Amino acid sequence: MRKFLIFPLLSLAALPIIAQTMPLNPREEIEAFNRKFEDASRRMDNAAIVELWADDGISLLPSTKPTVGKKAIAAFIDSVTAQMKGAKMEKFELECFAIDVSGDIASEWCSEHQVVLMPESKLPFDGHGKMLLVLKKGLDGKWHLQREMWNQGDED
Amino acid sequence: MRKFLIFPLLSLAALPIIAQTMPLNPREEIEAFNRKFEDASRRMDNAAIVELWADDGISLLPSTKPTVGKKAIAAFIDSVTAQMKGAKMEKFELECFAIDVSGDIASEWCSEHQVVLMPESKLPFDGHGKMLLVLKKGLDGKWHLQREMWNQGDED
Repeated sequence: MRKFLIFPLLSLAALPIIAQTMPLNPREEIEAFNRKFEDASRRMDNAAIVELWADDGISLLPSTKPTVGKKAIAAFIDSVTAQMKGAKMEKFELECFAIDVSGDIASEWCSEHQVVLMPESKLPFDGHGKMLLVLKKGLDGKWHLQREMWNQGDED
Repeated sequence: MRKFLIFPLLSLAALPIIAQTMPLNPREEIEAFNRKFEDASRRMDNAAIVELWADDGISLLPSTKPTVGKKAIAAFIDSVTAQMKGAKMEKFELECFAIDVSGDIASEWCSEHQVVLMPESKLPFDGHGKMLLVLKKGLDGKWHLQREMWNQGDED
């Protein structure tokens, strides 16, 4: 009888350790990616944002040509923040939907809401946008942004 | 000697037939999908456009909430053309880039240029846009639009 009791007790005690070391399922991996993306954007941490991109990533922003490749994307992000000197991200919220994972490819769409305090303006910039993201899992087992398009959110 | 000659001759004669019946590779399948999408858009053939969507397709247009599901997408396209009565698509060009296929998922980005003659306007609508498309191959072996986002093209 004792033997039988010890086994489940041990198992239960081991659960928290197992939970910490168990690999995430693909959906959880994408959700973890999204949190990193949200945190890096909120901190305006350009290096951390660029780190999330695949080497051959493509960013598709309105009224501009596509930005192709991690280097070009890094340069673009740096040029944007250079124009926003003294700006402070007061709020950045990212909520993603319809996560679909198939092998090493995933896609989802996200809504984002940002409030940025501008040094030379009394009114903060308050913007809503949507994104369509395609993610690819690299040989290193990490997900990276492969394609990103942004457009205006609805006005609600 | 004769036997050896007959075999290659027959093979060569059979080549056009084989080429017609050989299955397309995934990239060619996506290119064929793109031509169907372009043709249906040029003809403003709503039924043919809707046929290219997956049942759970999501369309992400600027300043609106996502349109989710084939039925909602069909209703939206019909509502747009109802507002454009008498309009004539003079030109619709679709060019797609960076086709990436992984198993039953593919993604690409496309540029589109449309010129629409409007019945109550002397100047035609002349617009450029970009799209990020995610396609999914169904159990029927056909590719369908799973996600589509559109934004403004560059002004060149």
